[in-house]
Amino acid sequence: MKDPNKKFEEVTIHTKHIFQGKIISLQVDDVRLPNGETATREIVKHPGAVAVLAIHEGKMVVVEQYRKPLEKSQVEIPAGKLDPGENPLEAAHRELQEETGYTCPSIKLISSFYTSPGFADELIHLYYADELTAGIEKPDDDEFLECVSITLEEAKQMMAEGRISDAKTIMAVYAWQLYQLTGEF
Amino acid sequence: MKDPNKKFEEVTIHTKHIFQGKIISLQVDDVRLPNGETATREIVKHPGAVAVLAIHEGKMVVVEQYRKPLEKSQVEIPAGKLDPGENPLEAAHRELQEETGYTCPSIKLISSFYTSPGFADELIHLYYADELTAGIEKPDDDEFLECVSITLEEAKQMMAEGRISDAKTIMAVYAWQLYQLTGEF
Repeated sequence: MKDPNKKFEEVTIHTKHIFQGKIISLQVDDVRLPNGETATREIVKHPGAVAVLAIHEGKMVVVEQYRKPLEKSQVEIPAGKLDPGENPLEAAHRELQEETGYTCPSIKLISSFYTSPGFADELIHLYYADELTAGIEKPDDDEFLECVSITLEEAKQMMAEGRISDAKTIMAVYAWQLYQLTGEF
Repeated sequence: MKDPNKKFEEVTIHTKHIFQGKIISLQVDDVRLPNGETATREIVKHPGAVAVLAIHEGKMVVVEQYRKPLEKSQVEIPAGKLDPGENPLEAAHRELQEETGYTCPSIKLISSFYTSPGFADELIHLYYADELTAGIEKPDDDEFLECVSITLEEAKQMMAEGRISDAKTIMAVYAWQLYQLTGEF
């Protein structure tokens, strides 16, 4: 039986490498479609990232930071891209500590998701952490963050106001609410 | 009082345009950080997209398609990018009909979210539709899709298997589950 992952497969005819940056790269693939025709696909490659739904004393830990692509600051759960060869779980511990100062004895995976499968391969691993211990933040040199903790109601209010408006944070708020209602993710 | 959206603002010093494609464009901005230092930001521009949580006879309507950036086929809710100048609500009606054949008298917004605010400005508007009427699909020339309907349990199983693994579809599954539990999004 044919591999179900290959249904409607688009076979690469040629790859043109356009850009190699510090975080992403860009290529354009010419592909053969299932009907024999050809098409082009614009593809952003990303190393992958982690994000953490961290709950401290009943509140969600979030960071506010400026997002240049949106030209505005946003409130998001702590997150960051994987270093080369880094294990996602280790990255989750590292990013939580760097961005919020908190450490956690046990972090568990909620889900992994592709942010934009139409044009990018970025995969975010979303984790859950509680029983947090406070510590000192140490963001990257070019990162300016403010860390606060918010209730579920405050999170929903920020969603309504557009201060929380990114996929991983909205997903974390939904997951947190489902966890409160059902006891599971 | 300073605009809260401008907290930690990164001011553009120079923009280098790298690529203009059919769907995305890429630029690299040199920015001035809040501490006066400079940094570069790699930014993908995207026209925005719509996605629809469409419920027919208690099941979620999904489409299976090949996602070249992931090199595998995926099960997702119907979605597509905005045409130039297109109203998101109209786009939601259009994409639902094109990809699944279904029409719906009333589609309502659940939420709008940025998929990857660290490197892209893509904004997806997620809608809810029920009271669907079946019709004929008419995908784009380079789109190969299979449309099916699945229960919430089947959706969760597909998430566990990785056949559903994109942000908008997982978010739709969470939203659907919350709607069943609480009666609201």
